[in-house]
Amino acid sequence: MNIDAHSAGSELTADEAGARFLRDFAALSMIGRSAGGGVDREAGTIADHESRAWWAGWLEANGFDVRMDRIGNVFGLRTFVPGAPYVLLGSHLDSQPLAGRFDGAYGVLAAGHAARTVAGRVAMGDITPAVNVAVVDWFNEEGSRFSPSMMGSSVATGKLALEEALAITDATGTTVADALKPDATFETPLEVANYAEIHIEQGRILEDSGKTIGLVDGTWAASKYLVRVHGDQAHTGATIMADRHDALYGAALTVVAARELTDRVTAGKLHTAVSTMQVLPNSPVTIARFAEFNLDLRSDDEDVLEEANRLLQEEFARIEKTARVTIERTLTHEWGLRSYTPAGVALATTAADAAGLPASRILTVAGHDSTNMKDVVPTIMLFIPSIEGISHNEKEDSTDADAMAGVTMLAEVARRLVQGELWNGERYVLPTTEG
Amino acid sequence: MNIDAHSAGSELTADEAGARFLRDFAALSMIGRSAGGGVDREAGTIADHESRAWWAGWLEANGFDVRMDRIGNVFGLRTFVPGAPYVLLGSHLDSQPLAGRFDGAYGVLAAGHAARTVAGRVAMGDITPAVNVAVVDWFNEEGSRFSPSMMGSSVATGKLALEEALAITDATGTTVADALKPDATFETPLEVANYAEIHIEQGRILEDSGKTIGLVDGTWAASKYLVRVHGDQAHTGATIMADRHDALYGAALTVVAARELTDRVTAGKLHTAVSTMQVLPNSPVTIARFAEFNLDLRSDDEDVLEEANRLLQEEFARIEKTARVTIERTLTHEWGLRSYTPAGVALATTAADAAGLPASRILTVAGHDSTNMKDVVPTIMLFIPSIEGISHNEKEDSTDADAMAGVTMLAEVARRLVQGELWNGERYVLPTTEG
Repeated sequence: MNIDAHSAGSELTADEAGARFLRDFAALSMIGRSAGGGVDREAGTIADHESRAWWAGWLEANGFDVRMDRIGNVFGLRTFVPGAPYVLLGSHLDSQPLAGRFDGAYGVLAAGHAARTVAGRVAMGDITPAVNVAVVDWFNEEGSRFSPSMMGSSVATGKLALEEALAITDATGTTVADALKPDATFETPLEVANYAEIHIEQGRILEDSGKTIGLVDGTWAASKYLVRVHGDQAHTGATIMADRHDALYGAALTVVAARELTDRVTAGKLHTAVSTMQVLPNSPVTIARFAEFNLDLRSDDEDVLEEANRLLQEEFARIEKTARVTIERTLTHEWGLRSYTPAGVALATTAADAAGLPASRILTVAGHDSTNMKDVVPTIMLFIPSIEGISHNEKEDSTDADAMAGVTMLAEVARRLVQGELWNGERYVLPTTEG
Repeated sequence: MNIDAHSAGSELTADEAGARFLRDFAALSMIGRSAGGGVDREAGTIADHESRAWWAGWLEANGFDVRMDRIGNVFGLRTFVPGAPYVLLGSHLDSQPLAGRFDGAYGVLAAGHAARTVAGRVAMGDITPAVNVAVVDWFNEEGSRFSPSMMGSSVATGKLALEEALAITDATGTTVADALKPDATFETPLEVANYAEIHIEQGRILEDSGKTIGLVDGTWAASKYLVRVHGDQAHTGATIMADRHDALYGAALTVVAARELTDRVTAGKLHTAVSTMQVLPNSPVTIARFAEFNLDLRSDDEDVLEEANRLLQEEFARIEKTARVTIERTLTHEWGLRSYTPAGVALATTAADAAGLPASRILTVAGHDSTNMKDVVPTIMLFIPSIEGISHNEKEDSTDADAMAGVTMLAEVARRLVQGELWNGERYVLPTTEG
């Protein structure tokens, strides 16, 4: 691996810094590389551990103190003002199966480079720090192997109990604890003043509007269900159609109904998805007695989401009759439109202007670790453009110029945060760094 | 286990024979018993091996020579006329997951009891045998763990190559050979004159018509597909709906279309089913790139089946456009209406009359080992009634009276077969019993 052993403190030109970032990003992207040019680094797999080890090595080589917390988040600290809290920058190194290189490894490495740049300017006396800087790889943001997603930041923000998270199993029965074997290595708990994250957009808005930076000011509203369809086993051939209680038929009707909901509200205002399916007994000659799947509704309009939820309940009732099954649905996650702190959006707007980067406000449809962190400290979320909006796919991409611009932007934001521009004087202690 | 050590040769009353059968069937039904009162004995599992061991023990205790062939079919032989071929009676002990007690263990045990009765009558000089009698438990009729179904009889009738069958793997990668470890223990290859099988109906026709015995004179026509839907991974939230190529949506549309085909032809003439579903990557936040499932069409009218196949191809084309996916379909099995030999149906009709059992002709929708055997020797297939037609379900059931009547019927058929009433002088050598 191509670890940059550049000592902190020296100043680089923007071109030199950009070239270094791209070289490091290319090296990181080789870990868990898939045949289609993406990466496959599900949380706690060998590829994920390799990328985490590479990240720890990069941090050490660049003057960071490396620490892991009790849920496996990997931190690097640069301390300028002993006793002051930290501005935390980060994202996640894990990926979906057969995913792209950017989502969220880009944000982790951008955080490292931005923090190094800021630390260099502190060392040169160019910046007077009010607080310190730290960077983080959050464990298991994706949630494909171990559900729920955003696990590391959820535990670190007190939204998910540590012991509960460590006991979660993958499809083969391996626990998070076994896949991770985390050690708490903080001597003193980490106190956080602010959080900032940069991520590929995963949509087409920046590309279509010709902007380089997205200033995220809120999240789409969402309702996420776990759906279980209960039918009754029967013979696929011999059982007459009128006697069947086919759980897979009920599930299929629901998948179709969820998709068609998007045609029943204002165009573009509703995204729906079913992406998992588990069928029992899954035998070629036995009608399914049971089917289980996720079902998500998301909108940037809370009224549209409410209408979609209402229509969905009607569909469930209709499908229960049509397929002669019972449908059990559990609302596992629900949130309305949520704002990022306006002061943070204002700071990021000023930073984009200062860096000469075309930027616009944007909502995020996807969840990020920042959506957890914004609930505990003033937080800034940034996007870079995503070519054709391709996401969770090996073909996900952004341009070198946009990738480098994002690092420049994050460094400018980090400079302002380290100078205390968004610090309200409070400190959030990450519980996963205690004891 | 309650193995009946009754010595062959003595005569039992019908009541005594029936009581013995029910006692043995209750004992066999305890093996792999499920909490819901059914059985779970997928091919090559511990429960299947236990039932096979029980069967071998029952055969030995009842004077049969026990043999296993190279694909794990377990035979019991009673030889009256050295050098003459055998009338073979049997079915299968394996089951679907969480299945009923009858499908096909009833037919195996009925074969054993019928053969014992015939052997007793031969020993008493009551019957003059032209041929010998053998009974069989065919390996893996169900095909839920190892596909294809009817594996043991397919290899024994030369329709599936032995080496190919032994190399087939289950979902965890275990091969048939590993699950089975079969040994060929035939000293001389088994030559078969005729085959007969009795099975629970798996439908409501006998129950609705008040008949005790079904005289199977043919099979429904069928077309079975393996369907693969190719889409493209994307984010379940961030990706706009118009950019999605959702393989699970394409699969769901196909499941629904297959079901609705049954409403587009004459009522009751078409059975369709999809009962398996495999999705990749099966992640809660990534649109599926791939879905694979079975799709079966069955009819008792070849014109209806042809029309259903034509409509299905139209649906595939429509769904490819709607879901923006490509659908790859492979016709894995196809057969028309196939007859059982009329001479066998006539023999069975006479036998039912002689036994005083109300009987009627019937088609079989499901495949059976007899559908393989009928292609190599003159074959008789019989049904007993199925309560409410419940099949591949723990609640599958038949009455004690019907179960005992079926054994009586099969014994009467076996008597006639052993006397050579259906033997055409030819012999089919089971290749799995050679070498």
